[in-house]
Amino acid sequence: MIHSLSLSDVLADHARSRPQVTAVVDGDVRLTYPELDARVTRLADALARHGVSVGDRVVWLGQNSHAVLELLLACSRLGAIFCPANWRQSEDELRFIVTDLSPAAVVWEPSDTTTSLQAQSAGTAVWVQAGEDYEQLVASGPIREFPQVADTEPTLALYTAAFEGRPNAALLSSSALIAHSASLLVVRQMEPGFTFLNNGPLFHVGTMMFCLATLQIGGTNVFTPAFDPEEVCRLIDAERVTQAFLFGQMIDAVAKANAGGKYDLSSLSFVSHSAEWDDMITVDDSPWCRSKMGGYGQTEVGGMLTFLGLAEGGAGFAGRPNPLVQVRILAPDGTEVPAGEVGEICARGKTLFSGYFARPDLNAEKSRTGWHHTGDLGRREPDGTITFIGPKLRMIKSGAENIYPAEVERALKSHPSVADAAVIGVPDPDWHQAVKAVVALKPDATTTADDLVEHVRTLLASYKKPRHVAFTDAIPKRGFTPDYDALDAAHGGGNYPGA
Amino acid sequence: MIHSLSLSDVLADHARSRPQVTAVVDGDVRLTYPELDARVTRLADALARHGVSVGDRVVWLGQNSHAVLELLLACSRLGAIFCPANWRQSEDELRFIVTDLSPAAVVWEPSDTTTSLQAQSAGTAVWVQAGEDYEQLVASGPIREFPQVADTEPTLALYTAAFEGRPNAALLSSSALIAHSASLLVVRQMEPGFTFLNNGPLFHVGTMMFCLATLQIGGTNVFTPAFDPEEVCRLIDAERVTQAFLFGQMIDAVAKANAGGKYDLSSLSFVSHSAEWDDMITVDDSPWCRSKMGGYGQTEVGGMLTFLGLAEGGAGFAGRPNPLVQVRILAPDGTEVPAGEVGEICARGKTLFSGYFARPDLNAEKSRTGWHHTGDLGRREPDGTITFIGPKLRMIKSGAENIYPAEVERALKSHPSVADAAVIGVPDPDWHQAVKAVVALKPDATTTADDLVEHVRTLLASYKKPRHVAFTDAIPKRGFTPDYDALDAAHGGGNYPGA
Repeated sequence: MIHSLSLSDVLADHARSRPQVTAVVDGDVRLTYPELDARVTRLADALARHGVSVGDRVVWLGQNSHAVLELLLACSRLGAIFCPANWRQSEDELRFIVTDLSPAAVVWEPSDTTTSLQAQSAGTAVWVQAGEDYEQLVASGPIREFPQVADTEPTLALYTAAFEGRPNAALLSSSALIAHSASLLVVRQMEPGFTFLNNGPLFHVGTMMFCLATLQIGGTNVFTPAFDPEEVCRLIDAERVTQAFLFGQMIDAVAKANAGGKYDLSSLSFVSHSAEWDDMITVDDSPWCRSKMGGYGQTEVGGMLTFLGLAEGGAGFAGRPNPLVQVRILAPDGTEVPAGEVGEICARGKTLFSGYFARPDLNAEKSRTGWHHTGDLGRREPDGTITFIGPKLRMIKSGAENIYPAEVERALKSHPSVADAAVIGVPDPDWHQAVKAVVALKPDATTTADDLVEHVRTLLASYKKPRHVAFTDAIPKRGFTPDYDALDAAHGGGNYPGA
Repeated sequence: MIHSLSLSDVLADHARSRPQVTAVVDGDVRLTYPELDARVTRLADALARHGVSVGDRVVWLGQNSHAVLELLLACSRLGAIFCPANWRQSEDELRFIVTDLSPAAVVWEPSDTTTSLQAQSAGTAVWVQAGEDYEQLVASGPIREFPQVADTEPTLALYTAAFEGRPNAALLSSSALIAHSASLLVVRQMEPGFTFLNNGPLFHVGTMMFCLATLQIGGTNVFTPAFDPEEVCRLIDAERVTQAFLFGQMIDAVAKANAGGKYDLSSLSFVSHSAEWDDMITVDDSPWCRSKMGGYGQTEVGGMLTFLGLAEGGAGFAGRPNPLVQVRILAPDGTEVPAGEVGEICARGKTLFSGYFARPDLNAEKSRTGWHHTGDLGRREPDGTITFIGPKLRMIKSGAENIYPAEVERALKSHPSVADAAVIGVPDPDWHQAVKAVVALKPDATTTADDLVEHVRTLLASYKKPRHVAFTDAIPKRGFTPDYDALDAAHGGGNYPGA
């Protein structure tokens, strides 16, 4: 156990090494690392007294809050598993999660759905209301020692990957989360003093991974319940925030909210976006922001599997692997496909998840070769960089040709009038499937379906061009990716040969 | 095994992800990552055919060479343990190492000592001469697959820590080495393209840790047999080196060698040193170089346990812990001492070694509390930063007072005439021990012993001032620290109460 380092251990070391550093800001709440450590210890003791033990689940049903980080750390201290659930979901979806995880404790913020769920809850779970009841719980625990928990134990569960209509909880150990944090510290060049604004949802790995990397370097996590452009500006100014969870239209919204220069956003060290934005902030020169921000990732690998910033000028727009993983592009028979050919993106290494909660068959299937099968298709370019092609289950078969939605989507999105686009396969009597594009145009754009098809034809082989185009106001999303189930249901898709 | 990542795995991934990147430069030898990977595979096969198996030892007796990295990676591929021995040692010292490790294979460069050792070698080890014989060995192996080796297996042995007159081989696993590399990547802000000049000895963790971090990020390792200022300049210029292994007088020597500006050293991104030096290079702004370079470390923790760069403006001059470890300052009874008090620096976490080779009693002793006991004394300052006090075994007891050599040494070294200094305890009839300073003055300095004692008295409590001062040309060193055994032998030290 001398090599073990859990999230709980990281917190304990910060309490020793950074006694005056602010760990958490959330409304009126400001906690130094020793204060956070003390609250987490009391909370862990209180949860243990309510029956939470090693391997048990604790669920959060609510918006962003410092309580999310406290519950995660208390679960790490106990060896329990914490799940921040997506509070935006329907009552039915949340009921599925509570049934699936059969948690020992649920901490909930009142809403129509959660109040109804709480009223129905019989079973063994303790339901604790966020706010006063939660504070009483924290206050009730003494400061005491806990037995060391191996860092290979799962400590975070994030729902993702709805392969068969229902999502699965990806289990992440302290070891995987800390390794992923290390990779973000490297690529984003995070330093002590880093202050992260948690304005994106903490039930999504995109925000959670930066929250945890900020914890790892002993920085400050600022929480706000949800995205509000004016409040984001206020918090960046007041807390000298280094980074927030912003992209695309969110950046435009923040820039617009600060059009008069009311707030000083110069502490924000972020990706270049527009002249107006770049004037307000400090443009970050770390590999994370230097080229286009991002890479390829999924919850099952702890966040990012590849980083664009590790492949400046590279051919593959997903970049190169995280320094703590290996990536192979495999054929269906498990052999590596040569550079230039499409196969499944497979991974192994320090940041990988521990499987899905209570899905032994699916777990065996996903790791059948000793590598994690992402379910996504990719291509190794001649320079070793990786291109993300699209979800394997959504490959479209038209005649003898394989067509990958992501490639057609990129071509569509390069059209100046297109705000967003997704591609599905619809049944075709002659070709098995045909490509259908669902497109959201920018305001005031007047492009026609024929224009778009012609645009794609100039960029890609003709058989990849859409045969059908539907216009919509917005593409439904699941996290960052199109919600293909919803698109299929709305636009007649289906019959994918890989599914 | 899906979470395992060995050094061999890292190399294999670079071969896939960086097919055109130069991994190694050594004289006329230039290898891309796929070329290095192929050579390592052939070498591993050849070693296996010579009987090297999981857990076996392979020793390098020679100067710096790309063969050192190849042998380490081949051992990682096989699950064997590689030891680059200190070739500067006497025949007796090298014989001790070869006897202690009982290696299955030795690769050696001819010198008086190694030739004599090789002639005596009976036993089971295969002796392969560096150069042609080594190249034949590499050429003899086929490209094949190897079974995966768990990254928790020891893969590198570095001799250190001569507690009882003979050194011990600290065993480091891939997991520990890769975690340490990750921490260096964070603090030094290393990026793809990083080029490290291995001009320091690879048998010492100080050079090896940067060699491995450079491997981790997919950079270029340049090897040179030993430190030669002019050759260092030439290589920095020719290979656009980002960092070399330089400090103190080595920097002065390099600056002097390039006084005429013959070589372009601007690619070197390094710590500020002198106006002349700063003009030649690019002053690095990463946390590693921003304040005074360094921190506290030892081979047993993979290199650096704490980093100054994680504690800018902090009170403790060893800085704050590596983000992947925990540090506690413990009393002899294993309890944590309060901030401000001296205790033993103890550590736990991802970068820690796996114990010393074949020293079960010592290993049990060093990890008796579930933490690694470094054998060094330290103090936690009120701001959470750590001060390194000195080796526990060398604490001087004068009357009732504990005196820590490092503190007195720092005071001596702050005198403008002092080039280097070390402090030992000599027997004293009245006080058990008395403080003796061994001092190397700068050229042309004319300071007297009384001057130096008075200087220390103005900085420290009077009982800490030296009662004896000896002048010498140079302080003998073991790595970066004074060789206290040699100093005691030469200057009458001994009778330490903690030893």
